Amino acid sequence: MTLFATADSITAARLHAEAPAGYEEDASVDAKVAEALHIAAVFERADRFDVISNQFDFLPLVFSRLTTTPVVTTVHGFSSERIVPVYRAYDDVAHYVSISDADRHPDLTYDATIHHGIDVDAFSPGAGDGGYLLFLGRIHPDKGTATAIEVARRAGLPLVIAGVVHDAEYHRREVEPHVDGDRVRCVGPVGPRDRDRLLGGARALLHLIDFDEPFGLSVVESLMTGTPVIAYARGSMPELIRPGVSGHLVSSTAEAVAAVGGVGATDRAACRADAVARFSSGRMVDDYERLFADVVARGPRGPHSRRVRPLG
Amino acid sequence: MTLFATADSITAARLHAEAPAGYEEDASVDAKVAEALHIAAVFERADRFDVISNQFDFLPLVFSRLTTTPVVTTVHGFSSERIVPVYRAYDDVAHYVSISDADRHPDLTYDATIHHGIDVDAFSPGAGDGGYLLFLGRIHPDKGTATAIEVARRAGLPLVIAGVVHDAEYHRREVEPHVDGDRVRCVGPVGPRDRDRLLGGARALLHLIDFDEPFGLSVVESLMTGTPVIAYARGSMPELIRPGVSGHLVSSTAEAVAAVGGVGATDRAACRADAVARFSSGRMVDDYERLFADVVARGPRGPHSRRVRPLG
Repeated sequence: MTLFATADSITAARLHAEAPAGYEEDASVDAKVAEALHIAAVFERADRFDVISNQFDFLPLVFSRLTTTPVVTTVHGFSSERIVPVYRAYDDVAHYVSISDADRHPDLTYDATIHHGIDVDAFSPGAGDGGYLLFLGRIHPDKGTATAIEVARRAGLPLVIAGVVHDAEYHRREVEPHVDGDRVRCVGPVGPRDRDRLLGGARALLHLIDFDEPFGLSVVESLMTGTPVIAYARGSMPELIRPGVSGHLVSSTAEAVAAVGGVGATDRAACRADAVARFSSGRMVDDYERLFADVVARGPRGPHSRRVRPLG
Repeated sequence: MTLFATADSITAARLHAEAPAGYEEDASVDAKVAEALHIAAVFERADRFDVISNQFDFLPLVFSRLTTTPVVTTVHGFSSERIVPVYRAYDDVAHYVSISDADRHPDLTYDATIHHGIDVDAFSPGAGDGGYLLFLGRIHPDKGTATAIEVARRAGLPLVIAGVVHDAEYHRREVEPHVDGDRVRCVGPVGPRDRDRLLGGARALLHLIDFDEPFGLSVVESLMTGTPVIAYARGSMPELIRPGVSGHLVSSTAEAVAAVGGVGATDRAACRADAVARFSSGRMVDDYERLFADVVARGPRGPHSRRVRPLG
């Protein structure tokens, strides 16, 4: 396996680097030039590989008809609807992977949904005995920070808010006035060790999002520590949370408050076991390997069978 | 011949369009997507062509190793030094054309210099009897608008300034205070007809640039009407102007003032004839056809002879 990435990448694979480091760290590098050289380097060597796994958005798509090596493209999201036309233009030759069923675009044909997987060992089982609820993520209306504050208050539990401020005006108006260092505490962004401890000690994670989130990494991180998640039933949440096993899907603040009341009954070991089974990096790797083998078995690109059923 | 361009293009060639119109005119189009689809459309059909003429900056370069069809790239300029690495990376397979010898980058290997050519019929021989000097171009320090004002004043001739304001602060400070509607007149941007009339009536065009201009379209436009050009001897100017025949190359305002004095002796018919011979669109087409034939004759891309001498 060869990883095409910047030279400072840490990998067990063979590394091919066109750039020493990320272009955001080097003002002498033009982003468009760096991207073009990076992607071209892959396709100029395409015949050495059985399959190309594209995690680089749309630019590799436009090279994909110039090689017989199949290109499997994970669609991590569309920065705007204006990006969709290029995905549509390559739908016939592309092998698209969605990161959740909820995130699929109706115009595109997907080979599979493969949920993200994370490093199980980075999360230890927690006792959930800290006596607080947790908000983990960017402080932004999308993430429902203010809703979490309201639910915690009505549930009579303190709230810990961990994450960076992503919308300063929202933070100033909707969050900061409630922060008293006691009932509502802000701890800023947290590293892996503090994150593990904060998650493991929480009664529940409040994930009362105000958008159709394609995937929720903080959700599966929480589940890995055994801490259940109370989430709005939007986007990928129904795919991540097993109601009654690993949390609750709600549709109002009142339901969320009620769910906090019931969350003490969660079997934290079962919650963690479900997360380990469904969201480990090992499971993700297995899914990709199975898909790559399937794509290769179908032979070089050509008029091959499309509209393969999703794995997920 | 097939032109890859927007669907609203006017051409006698076969037209292949990926986009209905320029992306700046359509807010629903993402520029990066439109460019990628446009360039990919060419390379997906590369085997239908003997040669690909690239007037689209660097993006086509990164596709050029994926086809055996030679790609001839006209380097119209580098938007910054940060663009040069991609030109350098494809120097071994590219066929670069410079638009002037002066514009060549020392790191790159060029197949030819091909000067721009313009439509001779759009310019009629002028008598140069309007009794004024002309500045034609963007009002910007690079173009030396203020220097032209000073030279005209010292030469005792009125100056007509035609062009858009490109640097508002420079215009306010260095140009506007001198505009009196008599000795210095600003006529704004001009269309083809007014441009022809203004150029033809001028005693001389003042092109006292403050940068190494890669090519000067207004210079050859002036020469086409028979009006000589007084220019600073920078960038491509020595390649465009034949001293004594079609103008004067100077290195100071004093020399420019002296040149205005001598410019009445110009044989305007000879000036025009030189421009027609060297800067007609027909001559440019001939140069490109010769280069394309030469490139094709060398056979499909491979370790072919590099470092071809420039035509120019």
